[in-house]
Amino acid sequence: MALYFIGLGLYDEKDITLKGLEMARKCDFVFAEFYTSLLAGTSIEAIEELIGKPIKPLSREDVEMNFERIVLPHAREKDVAFLTAGDPMVATTHSDLRIRAKEAGVESYVIHAPSIYSAVAVTGLHIYKFGKSATVAYPEKNWFPTSHYDVIKENRERGLHTLLFLDIKAEKERYMTANEAMEILLQVEKMKGEGGFTPETLVVVLARAGSLEPTIRAGYVKDLLEEDFGRQPHLLIVPGRLHIVEAEYLVAFAGAPREILEEV
Amino acid sequence: MALYFIGLGLYDEKDITLKGLEMARKCDFVFAEFYTSLLAGTSIEAIEELIGKPIKPLSREDVEMNFERIVLPHAREKDVAFLTAGDPMVATTHSDLRIRAKEAGVESYVIHAPSIYSAVAVTGLHIYKFGKSATVAYPEKNWFPTSHYDVIKENRERGLHTLLFLDIKAEKERYMTANEAMEILLQVEKMKGEGGFTPETLVVVLARAGSLEPTIRAGYVKDLLEEDFGRQPHLLIVPGRLHIVEAEYLVAFAGAPREILEEV
Repeated sequence: MALYFIGLGLYDEKDITLKGLEMARKCDFVFAEFYTSLLAGTSIEAIEELIGKPIKPLSREDVEMNFERIVLPHAREKDVAFLTAGDPMVATTHSDLRIRAKEAGVESYVIHAPSIYSAVAVTGLHIYKFGKSATVAYPEKNWFPTSHYDVIKENRERGLHTLLFLDIKAEKERYMTANEAMEILLQVEKMKGEGGFTPETLVVVLARAGSLEPTIRAGYVKDLLEEDFGRQPHLLIVPGRLHIVEAEYLVAFAGAPREILEEV
Repeated sequence: MALYFIGLGLYDEKDITLKGLEMARKCDFVFAEFYTSLLAGTSIEAIEELIGKPIKPLSREDVEMNFERIVLPHAREKDVAFLTAGDPMVATTHSDLRIRAKEAGVESYVIHAPSIYSAVAVTGLHIYKFGKSATVAYPEKNWFPTSHYDVIKENRERGLHTLLFLDIKAEKERYMTANEAMEILLQVEKMKGEGGFTPETLVVVLARAGSLEPTIRAGYVKDLLEEDFGRQPHLLIVPGRLHIVEAEYLVAFAGAPREILEEV
């Protein structure tokens, strides 16, 4: 009788850990949510086949409004798995769910999995030099968020890298591309004019992290703006000050212009 | 004929992903390094049994000085696995190895695994609010590093959390405890006197991340200084500004003093 938050990792059904898989197989009920991130290389059916059980996918409303009614009663009687993409507690919603479970008298456990927060190191950028991260959201009619721009600027002033998550509208199957994110940031640059993100800014794009052959590209915004990075999910990174080994890696594995070697 | 960097994850042999395990089983040679972090819940023998192959553990010298001689020749002929604790590219040494492999004409791939960089979210602290991370090293005779103190101060000024890695001297089997790290930081405070880390500072200790029941404790330095957090590895986190849900989580799961709820 407990609730197990089990991470599915980054890309396909084989990114779950052995510990997570064994626990999911032992649980009596298996729920999952797929609206906080995109597992592009698999399907619910493939995950069901792997764990040998039906999965009940939950909508945002199920999770945020009806968790006490839909999930917790089962966890009071039986072992319940709650599957999430990535590492479970990375989505702040899930740490809130753990509090709600505890308030309802339900014990919970966390089984970790690969997350983009560490996988981003596959770009060669040193992970301890990442500052605060931010999300680039689709602007809406009366809402054009710009805080990501400020985060980039603040991090760069300290020489730090910025990891930018790109908007997900799972219910519309809309996943922002790195190209769209660059366009949005250039629009913010036009509004603010502080030089935080210009056509000359060096950026790194990481697409389909967790697959054996992710796309990793580094270059200036003006050059990458029209490039095709393949299927989503995409991530955009704005590097801060580069160490020579970071620059060498970007040249070797991300096709960065060799001139960045001279700037470090 | 390729080199596969395969992450072993955080705690025991079951923290490898299914993808990593299948690839390790397919490889003709399996190397591993254990000097950059501690897999406390397992042994080389248990990992060997799981993958069904002998593992050749490499020393720091083997990796840093003799990689071209010991590892790469095999990867030119056969498939070679290089196992590492955590997520492979998080240790900057490993991204350098990928460059050296490429220079020697050897293709390499990365298979991710759980990392402390995302697992730290099990403390309830929101992960996007972590700033630059730092390492607390054992002071030596003529060397008392203090840059971690400056990182904490800089992050706190921006309201950000600081993740502090604690020193590892694998060859001496010496793994710093959170208590030792707090003592060192208090010594730096005495030297610098800037109020960056005092007995009144709220800290979070995470021990044995990746196990099903990690120790998570939050409290003031003066109260946690003498507490026993169990076996290493330990991590120390200095939170920045807390969101109410972060404070609630620390009270619910880390025994934080309830008064922190009033300060948010």
